[in-house]
Amino acid sequence: MKKYTIKDVEGFINIIEVKVGKSFYFTNVKPINDANFESLVWVAPNKTNKEEIIKLTKSNFIICDQSINFQAVTLEKSYIIVENPRLTFLRIVKHLFTEKKIAQIHETAVIHPEACIGNQVSIGPNTYIGKSLIKDNTEIHGNCYIYDNVFIGENVVIQANTTIGSEGFGYQKNENDQWEKFPHIGGVIIEDKVEIGANSTIDRGTLGNTIIKKNVKIDNLVHIGHNVEIGENSVIIANSMIGGSTIIGSNVWIAPSSSLRDGLDIGNSAFVGLGAVVTKNIPNNEVWVGNPARKLR
Amino acid sequence: MKKYTIKDVEGFINIIEVKVGKSFYFTNVKPINDANFESLVWVAPNKTNKEEIIKLTKSNFIICDQSINFQAVTLEKSYIIVENPRLTFLRIVKHLFTEKKIAQIHETAVIHPEACIGNQVSIGPNTYIGKSLIKDNTEIHGNCYIYDNVFIGENVVIQANTTIGSEGFGYQKNENDQWEKFPHIGGVIIEDKVEIGANSTIDRGTLGNTIIKKNVKIDNLVHIGHNVEIGENSVIIANSMIGGSTIIGSNVWIAPSSSLRDGLDIGNSAFVGLGAVVTKNIPNNEVWVGNPARKLR
Amino acid sequence: MKKYTIKDVEGFINIIEVKVGKSFYFTNVKPINDANFESLVWVAPNKTNKEEIIKLTKSNFIICDQSINFQAVTLEKSYIIVENPRLTFLRIVKHLFTEKKIAQIHETAVIHPEACIGNQVSIGPNTYIGKSLIKDNTEIHGNCYIYDNVFIGENVVIQANTTIGSEGFGYQKNENDQWEKFPHIGGVIIEDKVEIGANSTIDRGTLGNTIIKKNVKIDNLVHIGHNVEIGENSVIIANSMIGGSTIIGSNVWIAPSSSLRDGLDIGNSAFVGLGAVVTKNIPNNEVWVGNPARKLR
Repeated sequence: MKKYTIKDVEGFINIIEVKVGKSFYFTNVKPINDANFESLVWVAPNKTNKEEIIKLTKSNFIICDQSINFQAVTLEKSYIIVENPRLTFLRIVKHLFTEKKIAQIHETAVIHPEACIGNQVSIGPNTYIGKSLIKDNTEIHGNCYIYDNVFIGENVVIQANTTIGSEGFGYQKNENDQWEKFPHIGGVIIEDKVEIGANSTIDRGTLGNTIIKKNVKIDNLVHIGHNVEIGENSVIIANSMIGGSTIIGSNVWIAPSSSLRDGLDIGNSAFVGLGAVVTKNIPNNEVWVGNPARKLR
Repeated sequence: MKKYTIKDVEGFINIIEVKVGKSFYFTNVKPINDANFESLVWVAPNKTNKEEIIKLTKSNFIICDQSINFQAVTLEKSYIIVENPRLTFLRIVKHLFTEKKIAQIHETAVIHPEACIGNQVSIGPNTYIGKSLIKDNTEIHGNCYIYDNVFIGENVVIQANTTIGSEGFGYQKNENDQWEKFPHIGGVIIEDKVEIGANSTIDRGTLGNTIIKKNVKIDNLVHIGHNVEIGENSVIIANSMIGGSTIIGSNVWIAPSSSLRDGLDIGNSAFVGLGAVVTKNIPNNEVWVGNPARKLR
Repeated sequence: MKKYTIKDVEGFINIIEVKVGKSFYFTNVKPINDANFESLVWVAPNKTNKEEIIKLTKSNFIICDQSINFQAVTLEKSYIIVENPRLTFLRIVKHLFTEKKIAQIHETAVIHPEACIGNQVSIGPNTYIGKSLIKDNTEIHGNCYIYDNVFIGENVVIQANTTIGSEGFGYQKNENDQWEKFPHIGGVIIEDKVEIGANSTIDRGTLGNTIIKKNVKIDNLVHIGHNVEIGENSVIIANSMIGGSTIIGSNVWIAPSSSLRDGLDIGNSAFVGLGAVVTKNIPNNEVWVGNPARKLR
């Protein structure tokens, strides 16, 4: 196993101070309670017993913040002191312990002749791309289905078995009391750095577009209805359902298994709790939970 | 852009009266609050400020009902007065603004040699069809998986990544306190004009069939358990879960993220609210909401 | 139709007593209220009116337990008396009425050259298998996507359109208040006899593994987050969501549409009710329901 030292990481992390002990290398990354003596680990700043945790771990190479009492821990181990230990740890995992993927369009992918695909785009096996546009460095995993009229920006990741641009759910009763479908002629816009999990669905707009703005993160088994707009940096977690035409602000947190009625306005930095059933607009910065959801604070 | 006039639509809509103003054509269809001067739009009859809405829109070609006070709006615009503006609008969108699809079985679709496929059937890329029967004019989009013993009627639409005929969830503890699977030898019957969204699942029956009757509309990420029966014209919206052997009447509305226990009877024209958790039978025409769901009215 | 008699079943079921009447054969299997005179059926021991049910059925060949009052039913029919009628019935269905599948890797499946596939493994059409290991007698249906670093044991069944090993949902805000992804370098371990439904997702672990132990049964449209552990014989039913790092004991029952927060401990033999939103640890043997979930008993 390759031995990494502080030299291998100082180029891409912001270090406040390094304390090098007798043990000055690591070969793997582990959770602190499951480490071996060659593991790099991190300690969460908000723990009350950080020194105790450090005493108990077998790891000899620890990322932590300045709140540690270094009088109370052994200096035989090495410490990297940083502002944000989790962020530092994830960057080390990313740089040293993940394989660089080579962009590739798999031979079994089916691409519509009028699709427009950027540079360094990856498209997985058995994925279909309709008359749509995909920009540079984007990664669409296998068994996805991208309908026509979908715009996907740069550095987007879409995991397996996800459907983008399906026809939305809109019907009208006719003279014979039977449903007639409202044809959906709109599209989907997915901006840069959006990430979408596996087995999720994003419907296209009725006349206009469904819009997922920059840096939005969507988990698995999420449904996004027609004409929804989701603001920058918002997060929609597993099994949630966003009803048609609902507008979600930026930096919103939608916890798993939430359900938002159609046509709502959800303010910036709102927080919707696990399993909440939201039937009313939510102002900026509020926390709502329950069924039906009510303001918690 | 092609200019459409009243001549282009009068053949397929029911008109009460037309008022032709100076602007007598449209080139596109838009929501009324997002229109340009060449847009066709519609006004919802139940709005209280329809004349104000008409004053504000840039559109010059408006579909409305008879409740408009024409003294209070400009007659420079054109108006098509109808019973049901939304229905009229959707038919114009359908006739003038959607492409006619050509029925095609994609070369990457995998069809079991004993499958029976009708005329003018579309089957999308990477879809699998087992030993099943699909009737005329039906459309199954890409990446779907249709197991054996599924009957699909005419004019059915199934969107991408949906699974039909999977083995239902039925187990029995054996002498060693381990689960043994109840083998499912039934099938699925999907009648004419049913529409099913993306990434949904419909399990086959245990001994008999799971039955989805005429004109039922099912959205994305919906689970329909084994031996469920859904009556005509009923609607099951996104992320809902219908437990095994539950019988749903006709014209029922199941709002998104609802969950219905197994073995229930849901009466005709019942309404189940967003996120409702239904553990009891619902009589005809009742509205139930909440967790656990209770009668609202 | 083939006529089966007691001779055809006595080899694989545990019989307490047989009472052979005038009708001594069956040709099909049916629910007792939908039987014809050649159907084999079973009566549930916990019904209070079993004799009445037997009087009403057209079936002449009945599996029941010892609690029947044979004075009160006709002895023209045949009876197989057993400890567990449902278990006996399902074994007869399995042995006599299901086709033996021949293990086959479909020609359209895409297998990574470094994947390791055992004996008698079935892989369906358009399924992708990454750098992973699949042991003997396992069945993965069509349109599934198995990422790298997944271990799948023996006699596992995975239904269509399911995704295993997707990257979990973990992000950290960086210096610019933007999300950075926590790279997931762990895997998924699926032990022997696990069964997973259609359109479900199981994320891989962050650093360690997501672990699904022996004999666990997972239904359709279920999400299992990163680093979850599910103990032996537990059951997770349709549309449920298990948050990251939650540990579920053995013999747990998670009813449909349940949602379990991340990081919880759910004790052995716990029962989580339909649509429950679980935000706290659950001790062994307790029943929790509601939103938020509370102990029922």
